[in-house]
Amino acid sequence: MKVAILLYDGITALDAIGPYEVFASVQDSEVKFVAKKKGLIKLDSHMGYLHADYSFSEVDSADILVVPGCKPPNYKVPMNDEETLNWIIKIHETTKWSTSVCNGSLILSKAGLLNGVKATSHWGSFELLNSLGSISTEERVVREGKIVTAAGVSSGIDMALQLVAWEKGEDIAKASQLILEYDPQPPFDTGSPKKAPAPLVEHLRGVIEELAKQDSDFK
Amino acid sequence: MKVAILLYDGITALDAIGPYEVFASVQDSEVKFVAKKKGLIKLDSHMGYLHADYSFSEVDSADILVVPGCKPPNYKVPMNDEETLNWIIKIHETTKWSTSVCNGSLILSKAGLLNGVKATSHWGSFELLNSLGSISTEERVVREGKIVTAAGVSSGIDMALQLVAWEKGEDIAKASQLILEYDPQPPFDTGSPKKAPAPLVEHLRGVIEELAKQDSDFK
Repeated sequence: MKVAILLYDGITALDAIGPYEVFASVQDSEVKFVAKKKGLIKLDSHMGYLHADYSFSEVDSADILVVPGCKPPNYKVPMNDEETLNWIIKIHETTKWSTSVCNGSLILSKAGLLNGVKATSHWGSFELLNSLGSISTEERVVREGKIVTAAGVSSGIDMALQLVAWEKGEDIAKASQLILEYDPQPPFDTGSPKKAPAPLVEHLRGVIEELAKQDSDFK
Repeated sequence: MKVAILLYDGITALDAIGPYEVFASVQDSEVKFVAKKKGLIKLDSHMGYLHADYSFSEVDSADILVVPGCKPPNYKVPMNDEETLNWIIKIHETTKWSTSVCNGSLILSKAGLLNGVKATSHWGSFELLNSLGSISTEERVVREGKIVTAAGVSSGIDMALQLVAWEKGEDIAKASQLILEYDPQPPFDTGSPKKAPAPLVEHLRGVIEELAKQDSDFK
């Protein structure tokens, strides 16, 4: 199982590391962190880095492509970068599964993979996702054909376990879940806009919409 | 809220990045990735890196210390490194909360923080945890005084949300949970040894015990 995870400056670390950790727990899997240029990748928090071990030119196929998301408006840079979009399209032609986490689906959209396709994103980015030609769907993991999109940030863990089940069988996925002790016990029941208090949802929606109007710090 | 996350070669990425992402989502928090030497930190999978932005000599206090875990037997190197243990002890003297994820609790133990203290670890490391003088406890997040330990790998997300609630109040923690869309929907119910099929638990326990007997690849 060959997995390629796209990295770019301004990324949300957990969007990438959640799926990475699930895939890495599967025997004989190969996970590659890939970016336009290899080296350190700045996190959206401005408080740390991931690391791309491979550049686009070094990876030309994958069984599973993962496009992680970021804090708005950081997606604007990869969405408007021809080299990034072309690499996504090239890898997509070779994949069994082309996937995104959080608003990584906006980048997949911009690469032309989600036209008329049911997909999800961070709950704060549905309008933008629809404006790009996708059909937003309020589920945590959405599959249409070989395209699989996941909701915000932490949902990449659920998505990756599901992908392992489809690709390697349920027994292998169950073992991964046990190795990662993924028996979640969130302290609150506020993890989705359907469950969180309405004023909190509206406040954060406003913050997200304001951020989305800005230019990215990450050029 | 000043957070210091210990990194070391052979670490499990999600153990560190789960809590990081929760803390980074809180306004005005400051999260530092700290290691013996700054620079790239090898992951236990041998398939990537995290990055330490600070060395021990550059960080001498924190509100919250996080000691992440790793694949066995990688904890042996930090557990037997005086400089690492001394840094943990030094930071612990300044913290409001000293915490671990997964078998990071073995490292806390070796630093002398868990003598007679109720604590948890990855489910496969309880015997080792007890042998170091701690009282293993089968809960996902265990608090005794200012020491908080979390179960395997993914549990650091639950722990960090709980810490945000204690430190900044429940409203802030609820907002973090919504920003990270942490509304988990694991595909299976096999995330803890109490729930997974017994033969799977026993098989993986055997694998973990064999690994624990070995020397670490990460010197």
